[in-house]
Order: sequence, then structure tokens, then C-alpha cells
Amino acid sequence: MHRYEDYANELARQIQDGQLKPGDRLPSVRELKRQRGVSASTVFAAYYLLESQGYVEARNRSGYYVRHKSPAVAETELSPSVPQTYSMQVDISSLVFQVLEQARRRDMVPMGSAFPSSELFPLDQLAMGMGRAMRRMEPWQTVEDLSPGNPALRQQIAMRYGLMGIGVSPSELVVTGGAMEALNLALEVTTQPGDVVAIETPAFYAALQALERRGLRAVEVQTHPRTGINLESLKDVLDSHPVKACWFMPTFQNPMGSTMPDDAKAALVELLRVKQIPLIEDDVYGELHHGTRRPPPAKAWDRHGGVLHCGSFSKSLAPGYRIGWVAAGRFAMQLARHKLMSSLATALPSQLAILDFLQERSFERHLRSLRQALARQQAAAIRAIEQYFPVGTKVTRPEGGYFVWVEFPPDIDALSVHRLALLQGIGVAPGHLFSADHRYCHHLRINHGHPGDPRTEASFKVLGEIVHHAHKSRG
Amino acid sequence: MHRYEDYANELARQIQDGQLKPGDRLPSVRELKRQRGVSASTVFAAYYLLESQGYVEARNRSGYYVRHKSPAVAETELSPSVPQTYSMQVDISSLVFQVLEQARRRDMVPMGSAFPSSELFPLDQLAMGMGRAMRRMEPWQTVEDLSPGNPALRQQIAMRYGLMGIGVSPSELVVTGGAMEALNLALEVTTQPGDVVAIETPAFYAALQALERRGLRAVEVQTHPRTGINLESLKDVLDSHPVKACWFMPTFQNPMGSTMPDDAKAALVELLRVKQIPLIEDDVYGELHHGTRRPPPAKAWDRHGGVLHCGSFSKSLAPGYRIGWVAAGRFAMQLARHKLMSSLATALPSQLAILDFLQERSFERHLRSLRQALARQQAAAIRAIEQYFPVGTKVTRPEGGYFVWVEFPPDIDALSVHRLALLQGIGVAPGHLFSADHRYCHHLRINHGHPGDPRTEASFKVLGEIVHHAHKSRG
Repeated sequence: MHRYEDYANELARQIQDGQLKPGDRLPSVRELKRQRGVSASTVFAAYYLLESQGYVEARNRSGYYVRHKSPAVAETELSPSVPQTYSMQVDISSLVFQVLEQARRRDMVPMGSAFPSSELFPLDQLAMGMGRAMRRMEPWQTVEDLSPGNPALRQQIAMRYGLMGIGVSPSELVVTGGAMEALNLALEVTTQPGDVVAIETPAFYAALQALERRGLRAVEVQTHPRTGINLESLKDVLDSHPVKACWFMPTFQNPMGSTMPDDAKAALVELLRVKQIPLIEDDVYGELHHGTRRPPPAKAWDRHGGVLHCGSFSKSLAPGYRIGWVAAGRFAMQLARHKLMSSLATALPSQLAILDFLQERSFERHLRSLRQALARQQAAAIRAIEQYFPVGTKVTRPEGGYFVWVEFPPDIDALSVHRLALLQGIGVAPGHLFSADHRYCHHLRINHGHPGDPRTEASFKVLGEIVHHAHKSRG
Repeated sequence: MHRYEDYANELARQIQDGQLKPGDRLPSVRELKRQRGVSASTVFAAYYLLESQGYVEARNRSGYYVRHKSPAVAETELSPSVPQTYSMQVDISSLVFQVLEQARRRDMVPMGSAFPSSELFPLDQLAMGMGRAMRRMEPWQTVEDLSPGNPALRQQIAMRYGLMGIGVSPSELVVTGGAMEALNLALEVTTQPGDVVAIETPAFYAALQALERRGLRAVEVQTHPRTGINLESLKDVLDSHPVKACWFMPTFQNPMGSTMPDDAKAALVELLRVKQIPLIEDDVYGELHHGTRRPPPAKAWDRHGGVLHCGSFSKSLAPGYRIGWVAAGRFAMQLARHKLMSSLATALPSQLAILDFLQERSFERHLRSLRQALARQQAAAIRAIEQYFPVGTKVTRPEGGYFVWVEFPPDIDALSVHRLALLQGIGVAPGHLFSADHRYCHHLRINHGHPGDPRTEASFKVLGEIVHHAHKSRG
């Protein structure tokens, strides 16, 4: 554990114990330097971390103060979602494509984007490593490293599971063209067209699209904005629908950012094992935890190969390289064959560049600075939302990732907000995208993963004005 | 046209006109140098070309001689295939995977491989170009170059269609993870599970696997070993089956190497236009013509956007980079969306490396030397087959690519040959792989695209012994 984490934990304990009270000012950097001999950057890192965890808040130029609400009972917490009780055909693509297309415009403030800023990634180091790796490459590798993928890269990925205490053999791993291909292949080996798949609600729109593409039906499970899948709701769903697979994001769920507690993850895996239903675990944000601990994936409790754990380097290291993977459990061989049939192999230069980085550079050091940047931005985003958005607006405070999920008072239509924001050059992702029946209609998903963008603060202000206007003109 | 091509054409005319007769010896390099002042390499290039076209043959150390049979009426020509009249469920994968797995062993003589030798490709130049391109890359491109792909690369691909006199707009193009993904996406936007798709027979096993993967039924069309799809047979098939799409390789078909004449391609496109059936054109070998002319794809006659033309750089420039594309006609927008849904984007480093090569290097120069190497190896392979294999063996003489298709006398089982060859460290692709009912059982597809492999001649001898033995022990 790092020194700043130690210090942050110490302060968090003091806040929980009441030694530090709401409104108390934290020691200034200068005081701490004198008292404890710690560096300014350590103090800042600790305060950023506490801020992202909701314990403290920065006040303009006057330092950090203990917040009035503890994060667990913040008055802004959203209610658990209300799932539909019937399964649905999915037909969501047109709206999704329209919104995504707009998010790709370079001049747009990318709060609706699915990606963090590519400035956060070591693209130069990766490019150099790729050059090195490609010069070292033996021509025969173009054949040998076909699916399931480069053996040394699979070894490195397996080692990272080992670091989490999870035993995954390289032979269980299939390297894919990003997590999106991984997830689609996982669906392919666990379902047939027409089958029912259980999903969270709200759910990541790409999951909805993947179901649509394969002609699957979706059944929703109640999802808590902080603690994720409600296991009682899941049991009801499994009792009343012929569910063939579950597609869940137990860690930093998209869009809400919820994370299931460890024991709930364990219970989830056990429940699905008994019912013999595979779990497709979408875990692309797991590495982006703001706190000190990486929440273990549900895969950590998988003893029977029923969890297909899908990861990716696109959000943690190398956007655009399109390298993801599946730890596919008992489906590994079948999944490797489907990969061969659908796209033969994953681009070798991308595989070798990432392998080089993992072998030659400190992935951990990069991740630490990435996590800090995202945590800091989340705090800033939430501050701006509290400042500019109308009373009654609620916002999630995820412990990782780069999205917050905003719920407006019910008279505000997110699609109108989206359209008006577009006219001002601001992209947002309206809640409509996150269910098959477009019913999260006064919600926005806001991407705060662009720390270098100087337009952010002003954009929140503009967004706030748009929302206020919508509120008044209806209320 | 190059000088060697001029000279080869001149000689071909003389052979056709009877000025040069079977058995006549061609002038030696020394004579020609004296008479015409041409370089040795020009003469050799011309003779290799004529050899690959079947006009002349090399005799050990004594020079080149006019062959006794013109290529059109070679006694070794195979008969047209006999299609099944009913449509079939496809279930071919297990055998294919078993054979492919063995072909990947580095110690195996790769006559069963689907790939030409990676030594034939400018991997160093590509690596350097990629390094350059990645350093120039703007981070924002990781978002902007999502599907349908990097705009400049699509422009370059469109320009190559232009060179063939085919008008394809960059907006019609979707960059894919190799041709395999392109073909699968083309199937996705033209069919639903359970539909019937018309294919050649014998057909490329990956086409059969793609149908299997999507739950499609296959109906076979008679295919001539030299001239490809028989249009009368196709008409019968279309009249008697509810065909939703055709998946054909009109140029250098895999495995036979057949190429439909231009007017047949034109008639094919017209027939399918009238019937409103899309053509998925697999054209991954088109650039590998041995003669001077690139046979135009059927796409050249497509005026209504009904042809989905699938190409790739994997066999012409950059194996392992996984860059292919579709010129998808009226299906372009839908196909781009399916690409987004299935794998989001194609690896950016690979796209940029190929773009750099196309912009900065001579693709044509590389292609010329690649074509010559493959043509030369084909001539050597056919010579070896004629020398070592039993009487009654027939072999195709494709005008491009790196496969020949061998038909043994009917008492020889190709799967036994395959297994015995494996024990000797030689991979071959048994004919069983090339139909849904495994009925090409005394055929082999032989890959001759490994000119640097010193084991080739000896391997043909060993193969010949295996086949002779199988012949005798049964005959």
C-alpha cells in the first residue's frame, strides 16, 4: 500500500469514528509537511482519494473539509431500479447509433462518450514497444499466434489473475478484438437465437445491442445503484423465466457504477452454479477503482468453470489497439473455435505491443496515475452537478470508472436535454439508451474521464441551464 | 506492362500460332542477351510466367521447352464437380479444427496450410511504417477511426478499385478484422438463421464453418475446376431452393483455383440482380494472379449494390495484421453497424501501418515479386506431382494463388494420406474438408506458397510414396 493510501485510510477512520466532524477543515499541505514530513503530492493524492470516496470536499481556495453526509447515506442516493417482469425483444440500435455518431465529432464535449480521454494513456510508450516487438517478431508467429492468441500474452494475463488470487490457466484464455468481441463470443457459446438472457436494468446499451444482434430476449433484474444485482430479484427471474445465460457487470456497472459486495458476488456464482446457468461477466472497468482495493470479479468464486470473465486493455492501457480477452472456464475450447470461425485471429501487432508493455514497463504505475486522475475528475463532476443542476437531482458516486449516472426530477426529459446540449456542442448519453423500452427517460450518463478538457466546468454550467429551463417550462 | 511481360506475350502468341512447336527449346539467356540486349532477369521472369501459364516447362539444366499440351486441353484437367441436389445442415468443424491445429506446428511442412510463407511479405517495412504512423497518431484517432475505419485507408482501398476501373466510394467500405470477419458480417446482413445459401462445390471450409456458425443451410452449385460456377446449374438451384444469398469465389477459388471468365462474371451479377439475391464475393486471392492481368471481380459489373465484395491484405501484404474490408454496396450502412455491434472497431495500429505502406511504398513492386515467386512455385509443384504421384492423378493449374487441387484415382483415401503424411511431418489438406458431407475423399489441396522451404521437393517424393503405397495396397 502506498503512503498516501495509508494516510487517506487513517483520515477516513477518524471521520467514521467522529474524531473529525462534518465541516472540519483538514490540515493544509504546509501544516502536514511540517508535522509529518510528507510531500505535497502525497497529501494531495490522499485528499483526492478521500474526495472521490465522498468523505471530504474541496472549497474554493480554502482547502478540504469533511462533508456533511457520509457516502453510505448521502441524500442523493438513487432508488433501486424497477425491472420489467416480462422478457423483451430488443430493438434499440437506431437511437444508440444516432447518439454514438454524434459523440464521435471531435468538436463535441465528450460527456456522452463511452471512452475516457485517450490522453490518459501511454500511447508513445506503446508505439515504441510495438516497433521493438515487430522487429523481433519471427514471421512464423503470424501463423502460430492465431487464436487463442499469443502464448506469452496469455501468460501475462493469467499472471494478473494470479495477483488477484484467482487461478486462471493460460489455456482458459482467448485473446479477442476488444471486450466487445469477447462478450459476443461468450453469448455465442452459451445461447441460441430466441433464448432468454438475464441483464441488469439499466443496462449497458452494447449488451442490449448484442442481444438484439443474436435475436435473444432480455429479462431484467433489479439493480441497486450502489450494490448492483439484487439476488432476490434474480432468484424470482430465474424461477419464472427459462434463462440460458446472465450478462452482468458486477463491478463498476455501466451506466450506474454499482459494485456488488464480495459476499453478494460469491452468492451470485453459487446460485448460478446450482441452476447451471453460465455467467457472462463484463469487467472492463475493474482496474479503474478509485480506492486502494481492486474489487475482485465474480470469477474469483468460480470453481466450476461457469463464469466467462471478459476483460480488455482498451480502457486501462491501450485504446484503439482492440485487445480484450475471455477467461472462458469450461467454454474455453468452444469459444476459441468460435473466434477462429468468426475472425480467425486477433491483430498480432496489437498483441505484441501490449505484451511488450506488460513485460518491460510498469503497468501498475500507469494504472495508479490513471485511477487518481479519474477519481479527481469524478469529485469535480459531482461538485459541478450539485452546484448547477436543479434541486431534486440525484447522482451516483461510483467507487471506480469514469461515469456518473444522474437522475433528474421526473418532469425532465433526457432526450430533450440531449438534443439541446448537442446544439451547444455538448454530448451526453440520455437514459433512454439503457433499456430495451427506453424508460430511463429522466436520466443521463455523464462521462467525466476527460481531465484535460478545459471546457468541462463551463459545459456543466450550460447543461445545468438547459435542465433548469426544461424544469421550469414544464413545472 | 513490363518488358518481361511483353516478351512472354510474344512467345505465347508464337506458341498459339504454331511458330513454336511442342518440344521446341526456347532461346537460352545468353542467346537472348546477345540478340536483343535484354537482361537475364527479364528473360527469367518471362520464362517463369510462361511456365506458370503452362506454355513451357523447365528441363533439368537444359533449359525451357514448349510443353506438349496447351493448358486449355491438358490431359490432367479435372471434371466439373457434381453438386448435391438437396440443401444441407453444415457440421464440419471438428475435422477442420483437427487438421488446422496440426498445420500450425512449426516443424510441419506446411502443404496443408491456408497461408503462404510469411517470408514473402515486407514485415520489416511494415513494422517501420507502423512505428512512424503510431508516433504521428493523434490520440483522438482512437475514437475517430472506429468502424467503418480510418478514412484515409478507406480512400486508399477505394483508389485500388479505381485502378481496376471499378467505382467504389470510401463510404461503401467497412474495414474489418481480416476477410473472415468481412465475410461473416456479409452473411449477417443478408441472411437469418435457417436460410439457404448457395455455395460452390468443393467449397472453402471456412465458408462452410461460417454457415454452420450462423445455422444456415448450404446448397451446392456445380463448379468447373477451371471456369468456376456453372451458371446453368446455378439457375436450377435458384429455381428449386429459396436461396437468400450466394457466397462464391469467382477468382482463384479455394480449393480448386478456378476463375470465372469475365462474361460469366457479368452474367452471374445480372442473374442475381434479376433474382434480387445478394452476392457475397470472397476475393482474397485476386491480387495473386500469375499472369499479367488481374482478373476483375464480379463487383466490376455491379450497378445496383447487390455485390458485397470482401478483400484482405492478409495474403497480399500483411499477414497477422488482420486487415480486411467489404465493399458492401447497398448493405454498407447496415454492415458498418453490425461491425460496431460485434467488435466495435478494427485495430488502429494495423490500419495505420498498412495505410503508411500504401502511401509511402510501392505495393505494386511488392506484388510483382510475390506473384512471380508463387507462379514459379506452382510450376515446381506441378512438376513434382507429375513426377512422383501415380498415373491417373489429376491436378489443377490455377492462374493465380498458391493452391493446387489434386484428384487421385478413386481408390485412394485422402484422409489416410493426410494421416500417414502427418507421421512424416508433412501437412496436407484432405478433400474431406471442402464439402458438408465430406465427399471429396480422394482429393488433396496442396499449398505451394513456401518457396523458401528446402523440404518441399523431398516432401513431394514422400507424399508420392505414401500415395503409391495406398494405391497398391488397395488396387
